[in-house]
This record gives sequence, structure tokens and C-alpha cells, in this order.
Amino acid sequence: MSREFQTLGKITSRVDALERVTGQAHYAEDVSLPGMLYARVLRSPVPHARVRNVDTSAAEAHPGVRAILHSKNCDVVWSSGDQHGRRRVFADTVRFVGEAVAAVAAVDRHTAEEALALIRVDYEELPYVLTVEEALQEGAPKVHPEGNVDQQVLRYETGNIEEGLRQADFVYENDFISKHHNNAQLERRVSLAQWEGGRLTVWASTQGIYNCRADIAKDLNLPLSKVRVICQYMGGGFGNKNQGYDFDLMAALLARQTRKPVRVEFTRHEDFIAVHGRWATQQHYRIGYNQDGTITAIHLKGYSNMGAYLRSNGGVSGPQNYAAPNIRSEVYRVISNTSVGANYRGPSGPQGAFAIESAMDDIAERLGMDPVEFRLKNVVKDRWGNRTLTSNGLAECIRRGAEAIGWVEKRREYARQTGPVRRGVGMAIGSWGAELGPSSAEVKLLPDGSVKLLVGVTDIGTGAKTVMGLIAAETLGVPLGSISVVWGDTDLAPYSPGESGSRTTGYTGAAVIEACKRVREQLLTQAAARLKVRREDLDLRDGKIVSVSGTSQTLNQTWPISEVTSRNIDALTASVTTQQPDEGGKARMSFVAHFAEVEVNMETGKVRVLRYVAAHDSGTIMNKLTAASQIKGGVVQGIGMALREEMIWDRRTGVPITNYYHGAKPLIHPEAPEVEVIFVETDDAYGPYGAKTVGEIPIVPAVGAVANAIHNATGARMRELPMTPDKLLTAFRTGGQKAPLEARARGSSA
Amino acid sequence: MSREFQTLGKITSRVDALERVTGQAHYAEDVSLPGMLYARVLRSPVPHARVRNVDTSAAEAHPGVRAILHSKNCDVVWSSGDQHGRRRVFADTVRFVGEAVAAVAAVDRHTAEEALALIRVDYEELPYVLTVEEALQEGAPKVHPEGNVDQQVLRYETGNIEEGLRQADFVYENDFISKHHNNAQLERRVSLAQWEGGRLTVWASTQGIYNCRADIAKDLNLPLSKVRVICQYMGGGFGNKNQGYDFDLMAALLARQTRKPVRVEFTRHEDFIAVHGRWATQQHYRIGYNQDGTITAIHLKGYSNMGAYLRSNGGVSGPQNYAAPNIRSEVYRVISNTSVGANYRGPSGPQGAFAIESAMDDIAERLGMDPVEFRLKNVVKDRWGNRTLTSNGLAECIRRGAEAIGWVEKRREYARQTGPVRRGVGMAIGSWGAELGPSSAEVKLLPDGSVKLLVGVTDIGTGAKTVMGLIAAETLGVPLGSISVVWGDTDLAPYSPGESGSRTTGYTGAAVIEACKRVREQLLTQAAARLKVRREDLDLRDGKIVSVSGTSQTLNQTWPISEVTSRNIDALTASVTTQQPDEGGKARMSFVAHFAEVEVNMETGKVRVLRYVAAHDSGTIMNKLTAASQIKGGVVQGIGMALREEMIWDRRTGVPITNYYHGAKPLIHPEAPEVEVIFVETDDAYGPYGAKTVGEIPIVPAVGAVANAIHNATGARMRELPMTPDKLLTAFRTGGQKAPLEARARGSSA
Repeated sequence: MSREFQTLGKITSRVDALERVTGQAHYAEDVSLPGMLYARVLRSPVPHARVRNVDTSAAEAHPGVRAILHSKNCDVVWSSGDQHGRRRVFADTVRFVGEAVAAVAAVDRHTAEEALALIRVDYEELPYVLTVEEALQEGAPKVHPEGNVDQQVLRYETGNIEEGLRQADFVYENDFISKHHNNAQLERRVSLAQWEGGRLTVWASTQGIYNCRADIAKDLNLPLSKVRVICQYMGGGFGNKNQGYDFDLMAALLARQTRKPVRVEFTRHEDFIAVHGRWATQQHYRIGYNQDGTITAIHLKGYSNMGAYLRSNGGVSGPQNYAAPNIRSEVYRVISNTSVGANYRGPSGPQGAFAIESAMDDIAERLGMDPVEFRLKNVVKDRWGNRTLTSNGLAECIRRGAEAIGWVEKRREYARQTGPVRRGVGMAIGSWGAELGPSSAEVKLLPDGSVKLLVGVTDIGTGAKTVMGLIAAETLGVPLGSISVVWGDTDLAPYSPGESGSRTTGYTGAAVIEACKRVREQLLTQAAARLKVRREDLDLRDGKIVSVSGTSQTLNQTWPISEVTSRNIDALTASVTTQQPDEGGKARMSFVAHFAEVEVNMETGKVRVLRYVAAHDSGTIMNKLTAASQIKGGVVQGIGMALREEMIWDRRTGVPITNYYHGAKPLIHPEAPEVEVIFVETDDAYGPYGAKTVGEIPIVPAVGAVANAIHNATGARMRELPMTPDKLLTAFRTGGQKAPLEARARGSSA
Repeated sequence: MSREFQTLGKITSRVDALERVTGQAHYAEDVSLPGMLYARVLRSPVPHARVRNVDTSAAEAHPGVRAILHSKNCDVVWSSGDQHGRRRVFADTVRFVGEAVAAVAAVDRHTAEEALALIRVDYEELPYVLTVEEALQEGAPKVHPEGNVDQQVLRYETGNIEEGLRQADFVYENDFISKHHNNAQLERRVSLAQWEGGRLTVWASTQGIYNCRADIAKDLNLPLSKVRVICQYMGGGFGNKNQGYDFDLMAALLARQTRKPVRVEFTRHEDFIAVHGRWATQQHYRIGYNQDGTITAIHLKGYSNMGAYLRSNGGVSGPQNYAAPNIRSEVYRVISNTSVGANYRGPSGPQGAFAIESAMDDIAERLGMDPVEFRLKNVVKDRWGNRTLTSNGLAECIRRGAEAIGWVEKRREYARQTGPVRRGVGMAIGSWGAELGPSSAEVKLLPDGSVKLLVGVTDIGTGAKTVMGLIAAETLGVPLGSISVVWGDTDLAPYSPGESGSRTTGYTGAAVIEACKRVREQLLTQAAARLKVRREDLDLRDGKIVSVSGTSQTLNQTWPISEVTSRNIDALTASVTTQQPDEGGKARMSFVAHFAEVEVNMETGKVRVLRYVAAHDSGTIMNKLTAASQIKGGVVQGIGMALREEMIWDRRTGVPITNYYHGAKPLIHPEAPEVEVIFVETDDAYGPYGAKTVGEIPIVPAVGAVANAIHNATGARMRELPMTPDKLLTAFRTGGQKAPLEARARGSSA
């Protein structure tokens, strides 16, 4: 990276840091409207049943109750709740414990909750399936009439997999299992809806105000112009607040009926079971490799447990990170009577990396190769499938990460351990798409020379507002302090694609650049006319108009921006919608290599991650502070996923039993290791100032890196997540959790 | 008027009618923020004093008090409070009863009020002046060191006044007096301020969010981009909510100090004495006229009592409506120890029309001419001072109004009355500027084909939102129902000049037209490309893209807008700031003639206005419903000003004693007469679709029309407002209130 920046690429505190840490930031839950009603939701206690009748007579008679909606008086479909449109806001057939059956709006929370207890639902219980195995059994109860496997199988294929396996010296074969675990973001669901003259305003906790607006408008059959979505501060989502949700619709419907503002709140318990977590997977790998360490074929057959509805892709990623000539990946999406499995940061990533990175470590071990060397030999270089990569810093990430963790010395040192407490280092790699796409942005240069930047982001914790401000400051040539970023309101800010898929910097950042360029040009054109200096002699630097060339009288003269703008009645404005850029058919990817050092107590099975190095090729880093924070957060989530987090369903009742923080056990601060972040800033020609992506990827290799470090420390190969002490202690006795590894010689049958 | 409109010029309900009448509209007072504090203001009980000391110790010790600001700890200047910058938010020298001395923020209203009672202010009382006479006396106490008459005298002069008077056959000379009366809008002052990360949001009740933003930013020394002003609904102001106010600054300052949102509320009492009402005037007229009914000269010498600070112009209008070759108008602004006199609807108008229209009736009477004929002979035709008028429907207003009220028949009939209850008809004319100026507007055509129109208006009761929507609908070629108007938030909507001076339709309407034209062009250009039809063959009509020419296959084919826009990721947007248009040096004016029919009880002095005809040349009328409502409202205010409203100061104490509705006695609904509105739609080439102005003018001639009707009914010429029963009964005995009229023959000395 040789770019020189004035503002970008430094360590910059968030523009809203003070509000966030002093309690001045207002989240959806903090908005209070006069006459507001409070709504609570009644949920199914059984995993599968037809709702025969909903008797609300006692609840309606309860003083303070204002409206009750349920499947018998409301058939609104929540379209983003299921890709096949099968999900209603209030279920007439419940398909998992926690599915919404009714909602009550009342004068306060307690009255609403009391009313819930007075609603009598007559359920006709049906047989149910919880796991992939149960769902796939012949004659299994059907969750939906279409059957329990989604007809569309996710397939990726290059080369000829059977040929590739036949040509291999050895074939590695193994199974890996990951579990459903919840996004567990701090902020619960709150949606507040208000109708004013046929126009609906929803204060939501959302990652994408524009997604949310589109979904609400669609489901309530409203013009887009009649829906406003506001999200000023956002307490995390990690993928489970991407769209318009059933609680938004509930709030809107109850508000319409009662003619009052209505706030729907989910409890933490509801948040865990009624929204979604990451889908559980079962992955069967067959990997062909040669004695020289070359991988010839990778075959993944996977099953994803999507829960009761198909909300998102359900894929498993990983194989494409390796330059094998023959790859086949097929993933079956299985429907079951459990909470929905859908997007959680790097949705297809960490479970995928856990499996394939464990497998690659196994293969390296069998070949007697160092895992670092093995990966350097096999990872993708300049191709991604059949496309050229725009840039690829993966090998450098691997090298620099290995150096930082002290790979060679530690692997040597830890090979000699005995005793009850052992240490190990492990690594894993990952990738995430950095495609670009359209967004909008608006910039206003005000009469006093200050700047307003309007972007439709909500800043889900990533520092997006700050990064958008930095990009604007860099492009305009003004200090960050003169820019006010305005965000989080569809009436206020133009379209942004929603903060998922690591899109904000790439998509919206490009629109910010273009809008700033246009306003800058307007300013300098006005300046030339008013200051009687040629346009080409003027530049905007550090918030001042500067004469950078031309006659000696004016050379190096500076003028405040307001010298020009104060004569305007309103702001100089540029409102831009960028188009999908043409990357010439190339693939843009971010790459990472993570290295974990763990300490394992062989007697208790307890694992501590001592140190962690995360080397990231995310192209140009816009803000080294918030990018590093993002990475640290993802790593910590990955460690939680590796060691502890799992939603457990009681097999006898279908009831989820680890449905809150206490049960889910995400990592807390004192447990988080020191994370050293290394930026490998490849020079990518396409992204805004060369940026690729940061948000999704940090969690991707973390589980695999921890698993491999545990293997290095203990010799145990863990094949099921989470790697809890009970499983570890079993593995210490057997060397692994389940069936032994198998390696076949070339030519034998599969 | 020969224009043909699809949408404009009809009778259209307000787009927000339902919210307004069902209590769903949210005014500044309805906004509630978590942790919000309530502030109340301590005001001077004396008309003139130096504040020696403010002892807040007892108040600070009062539980629940969070902050107290006063002149000894806060010297912020409220710049729009006085044109000479002499006014502080908290006065160190108080100059009228009701001036703010301190403000307390506390956990609730009652605590704040209790704390006010605990503040001990040590006043050093000073002598004071209340009236123009007192203020102008030699050796009078000075309100400000600069003296009690503002150095800038308002002067208008054309021709040679002394020459004109000398040439006249007769000179009419008389005095007229108008009093301070309050705007008395329904909504009190409420301002709620919140700081978030150095950025200030103020929910204000304001006629101009952009004025308000500019004033607050200036007085608190903030960049414009760090101030947001929101006013979603607005409960009237009639000129006393034009700028940033001291209560906005108090809210912002207390919020900054307490780090909490703070709501400042004025009571109705405070609203009457601490903001402003219309300035009182004393007008001395000399009018030269000839036997043939020609006016040769008009000389007005006026005094306006501006109260303790000079906030607005203080002028007196009227003389220019007559085509006299010699006019001199000189108005002295006098400062006194009373509440401020400043803008109230048609600020310089009704007191001016009261005087000159009474005078003109007197002159017509002396000449034995009918007042209608006398005015038709003398009113301005195609010139306004030394400029050409763009259009002038005044004569037609006079003729059509006279016809509608049944002028000739009624004047004849009422001439024969005796008995204790008498009727009369009277008329008066008026004018108001219709100049044009810059504004901004933004239009967004959304992917589903619906439209958002963003305008920085607050809709102060005029129906501005509806009119902006109608203009957009007309220009785009879509139905009003597909347009959502977004307004009232400086973050959200672009610059608008503030709804005062009848500027919204002219200024912002022009910007809406331009923005709509641009979006329309974008749409049709996209449509041409996507539908494979030539651009010039396409039009947008009634919300559909239509092929209006071209090949027979596509001729008359229609496509929904969304056929084109749904392929866009974001809205098609046009953000426009118009420039000051070039009217070629011409004058643009609206004109009106009003006709009142009254019934007077000669024994009680009680006056009832029975019927009223208001004939208006406001150019093209955008919405006949809301324009007529505006006119009716102005007429009713004028009748209240004519008959009842007056702020009275106790001469012994300087205390204002008619400082709430009960004392001010504005008209109530059952007292309002039937008002027949006639639109004389002259074809004006400059305004948006030919519109001139509506808002200010309806009050202008109303007082004069009522005064002349009373004269017609009773023979009494009233020269002092309000025309209350006590004054009327006196006049019935004397034929007039004060000195008799004087008419001098030509050539005698003045």
C-alpha cells in the first residue's frame, strides 16, 4: 500500500463515541411517544400443532387491554420470514416452540403480560422433528407439506470430483458437526410504530432501514413513500436484524387498530428463540491429496438445519479457499421443528472453516508437513474458481501471522509437553466476498462551510458513521470535525444497502466519494467565479480553498470555505446513486489467517485462549481503530462458538433450554484474549480508496484456529462444536470424538 | 385566468387533515424524551430595573432542581431579539414586566415552579415610560442609552408632498390610533432541546426551521451542521414564531448544562407578555384632494411603539395603494418599557388600512361620492410607486365585492335607518407584496413509483404542505395521493425561507416545480431507454407513462411508473435551489377589497359583523379550500382587532393586565360572520403557475372595512382601536372620538 491519505487509515475515535459511552445515545427502546401502548407476544409452548381456536374473551375483558391480534383475526404474511412465503405473523400452525400465536397491546407492559396469560389457545398437537436425522427419516412428520428438505440444493462444482479423488494418493474422510447458536447481540427487539395520516413510522432496531422499509411496505401493501423507518442507534444484530421483522409488523398492525403508537418488546428469552441463530450443520468431507502435499479434490456434503422456516442461504463455505482442481460442494437445507437458523456474522463461514481447517491440519499431520507450509502450498493464489482475483494477500497474512505468534518456536516447544496443563498453537484461514454494488449518499456543504453527510446506515457497531465521515473528509479535503454525519432514517438519508454482508464501506463508501467529488467541484467552480481565480488553480485542502498554481499574486492564498458558501441561501448539495461497478468479471475477496494459542487443562477439560493473532487482507483500512475493534469482536464471538455456545432443545418436549445469556454462555470481557491485529493492505483497484471488507470475516477462521490449537496442545481432534470440557475429556481418552479418521490409498473405492 | 390544471385550483382537503382533527398530530409539546427535564422562567415584575443580584441558594437546595441560569452566570445574547444586539437571554437590566431574569430546569414542572419562587432577585428600580407620549417627552427616562426613538426613521417619498398639498382643493387632516394586541395563536411556546455528541436538536414551535437553525447556531456559536430544528406540527404563530427565540436558547443552554433533554414551556400568560404582539401606532394623516375626487397628496407621520426592544420593521402601510402623485410616509419607531411590538399577520397592514381607509371614506363623504366610486377613481392601476405592476386585479376586486355584498342597494336602504339597532356596509382595500425569492426543494421518485416531496416548511396552518403537494402533482403529472410530503426538519428537508411574509407558495413552490421537472425528465429519459420509445413521444399523465405520439403500435400505450423505477436501487432524486428570479424590475403585489356589513346597537354600543365579502387578487389560487380558509381566518382576526383586542398596561405599575385569552378577547367561533370569498385570479406571469400571495393580506383591510361599516351605520367616525362599546357610545354623542375633522381650502397654510 503506497497511498497517502490525509484522514483515512489513521486511528480515529468514533464520531458518536461520547454518546455511546455516556448513555446519551437513543436506541429504539428509548423512544417514547405520548399515549403509547405496550405490546407483548404469546408464543407456542409446543413444537408442532394446529391452532384450533384462540379464545381472547377473558383477555379482552381485562382492564387496560386495547387490542389482541392472532391467527384467527390477522392473516398478514411476514414475507422475509420464509423464502417460500409460508410464514404468517401469527401462526395458524405452529412449527416450533416460541412461534408467535398472538399479540396484546395494552396500557402498560404488565397489563399486556397479564392479558397473555388469559388467552386460551386450543392446540391440536402434531408429531415433530428436531434434528437433521429425525427430519430425514423415512416417514418423518412433515414440518411443511413440501417436505423436510428444501428442493433447492446448494451446489458448487469445478473439475470432476470423482476423477480428482481417484487420482489422489490418499483420501481423507471425516465428519464435523456445528450447532445452532444465537447471535446474542446486546440489544433486544423493540419496534415502535406510529401512524400519522396513513403514513407509518417505525422506530426499529435494524441493520438496514431501507430493507426494513421495503419489507414492511410489501407486507402491509403500502407505497414506499408512506413508510418511514428510523434507527438512530443500534445495539448489535450480527445478521439477525437485516430485514423487516414480524415484530415491526405486529407494532404497525396493533398501532393501526388502536390508533395509538404501539411498542412491541421481546424479552431476552424471546429474542433467543423467536428470531434466529446460526444454523447447525453436519459436514462430511472427502479430500484427495498426494504424497507431495498437493490437494487434488475436495468433496463436501453438508446438511444445514434451518429450523422451521427457510430464511437465509444455509450454506457452508471453506473449500474454495484451496486451489484444488476438483471441488464439489453440496449442501442440503433441512427443515425441522426448531427455532429458525439464519444469518449470524459470516453466516456460512466459521462452521465451514472449523471443518475444513481441522481437516487440513489432519492431512498436514499425516503428511508430516507443517500446517503453515501446507496451507501456503495449497491456498488460492490469483484465481477464485474460474475468475481472476483482484488482489490476494492471503499468503502474506499466513506468513506475517505465523511470525507474530511465534509459530515455529512454539510448535517446537509445545511438542515436548507432558503434565496436566498443556499449550498449543493452531491456525486457520478464511475468506469473504468483497463485491461492490450500488448505494446512495448525499452531501451538503452549508452556507457556513460546515458539511452534512447523509447516509442510510445505522452503524450496527462497526463504526460505519465514522468511516463514512472519514471518506467524506478525505475526498472533500476538510477535517472530519467539520462533517456532521446524518443517518438512520429513511426520510432523512438516502438508500444504503443495509449493514450486512460487509457492504457498507464498499457500497456506500463509493457513493460518498462520488457525492463529495461533485460538491467539491461545485464549490471550486463557485470559488473560481467569486474569487476571480481560475478553477484549475484552486484546490480544497484541510478545510480551506487554496490557490495551488497560477499567478504569483494569488499563489498559496487561502480562503475559508464560507467566503464562498455564505453567499448561498441553501447548501451546495450532491445526491448520488452509484451503479453496480464493472470489475471486469474479476472476483474481489478479503482474506485472513488467524493464529490462536491455547492452554488446556487435561484434567478438567477447561480451555483458555491465551493469545490471538489476526492477520487481515481487507485492502485499505479506513480507520485502524474501528477495523481492529471489529476484528477483535469477531474473534471473541468465534471463541465462544468454539468452546461454549449452543442452543439445546429438550428432545422430549422440543423446548429450547439454553435460551438466554446464562444458558448460551457467550464470552465475557475477562475471558477474551489479547488479540493482535495485523493489516495486510493489498492495493485493490476497485473498492473505495482500495478498501475490501472487514465486518463478516473476523469470526470465520476463529473456531478452526482454536480447534487446531487444542489439537496441537492435546492431540485430540474435536469434530463437534462446541468443544466443551465434557467432550474434551472424552476425546483425551479416545484421541477424537467419534469415528476415527480414515485415509485410503489411491484407487480404492470411495 | 385561462390556465387548465389537473390538480391545482380545486377544492382539496389538507393532506394532514385527519391527524389534525383526530389528535394524532404531534406538536412540540407532545414530544417527550427519556430523562427529560422541565424548565420554567422567572420574569421581571417591574418595568425597568437593574438586576443587582440573583440569589439562587434556596432554589438550588430545593430537591429536584438541576440547573439555574440567570444574568449573572449566563451572558448569551439573543440576537434576533433586538436588531441592535442589545438583548440577552437573561436580562441584567430588565426593561419590561415579563422580561426573563432566570430559568430553572428541574425534574418536573412543579418543582421548577417551586424553585422560581425561591429565587431572590435584588432589583434596583428605575423610572419607566409606557407610551409614545411619555417616551418622547423631554427628559424622559431612557429605555436604552441610545434614547427612545430609533435613529432609523422609515421613510417613503414620491413626488413633492408640500407641493401636492398646496395644489389640492382641500386638505383632510386627522389622527388615528391603534393598540398593541397579541397574536394570540393557540399553541404556546414549547422548546425541547437535546444534545447528542456536540450536536443540538431543538423541537420548536416555529414558522421557519431554517431561520430558527441559523439563529440558534449564531447565538450558540455552533456550525450550522451541528444544529437540527424539528417542527412537525405547528399551532399557529402569525408572525411571532419566525426566528430562533430566547426559549430555544434557554432549552439548549439548560440541556447543555444538565446533559439531559430540557423542555422549556411558557404559560399562556408568559406567551402574551414575553414574546410580542403587534406594535401600537399613532398616525397623523394629511391628504390633499380636489373637488373632482382626485387625490393629489398623502402625508403620513406615524409613531410605532416597539416596546423595549426593536425586533421588527415597525412600519405602517397604506398610502401606496392610492395613485397619488405626491406621497410622503415617515414612521418613527419608539422604544418603551412595554412588551415588544413586532410581527403579527400583515404586520404594518391593518392599523395602516384602518387609518387611511377611514380617511378615504371621510373624503368621499365630503365630496358626496360613493366610497366605491372614489376608490375606483384613485387606487393604483398599472404602477406601484415608480415600478410597473406585473398584474393588478384591485379594481375588479372592488367591483365584484361591491356587487356581492349588494353595495348600492344596502347603502341606499341603510341611509334611511332610525331606531336603536342600525346596520351599515363599509369597505376597505389593501395590498401585500408578492415578491419572489430563492428556496430549495427535493423530490424523490421511489422504486415503486410513489413520490416523496421534501420541503422545509412547517405548515403554520396555511395548508402549505398540501399546496406543495398539489404543485408537485401538477408538475409531475401524478395524483396527489401518490405524493408524501416530508417537512419540518432541517435534517430532512432542504431550505425554505420560513413561513412569514406570504413567501411559501411563491418561493418554495417555484423550487418544487423545478425539482419536479427534473425528476420527470429523468424518469422519461429512463423510460425511453427501457421501453424502447423515443423520449419525445413520452409524457407522464395521471401517474402513468403515456406514449402520446410516435408509431401506431405504441401510440396511447401506458405503463405504470414502477415499470421503469422498480429497476432503480434508490429513488430518482432532484434537489434544487432556485435563484432570485428576475422580474424585470417590476412590482408584484396582491390586492384585496373587503366589504363588511354590521349591526350596531346604539344603546349598548355592541357591534355585530353580520356578513363579509372578501375579494382577493392573489393570482392563481392553488387550493381553493385552504386559500379561502386562510382568508376567513384573517378576516376574523381583523374583526377582533377592530372591536376588542388590546393589551392594556397598568399605568401605575407598568404591568400588562389583559395578558391571556380572557383579557384579550379574540373572536370565538359563534361570533365569526359568514365570509364570502371571491377569487379574482389575475394572470401573473412570474409566480409559480401564476400564484401571488394569500397569507398576510386577509387581515389588512378588515379593520378599516368594519370601521367604515360602523360609520355607515351610525355616522360616528372611530379614530382609536379597538372600537369598544364605551368608545362607541361616546362617539354616538359627539360624532367622533376626539378632535373634529378639518378640511382646509386650497392655498391655506398647513
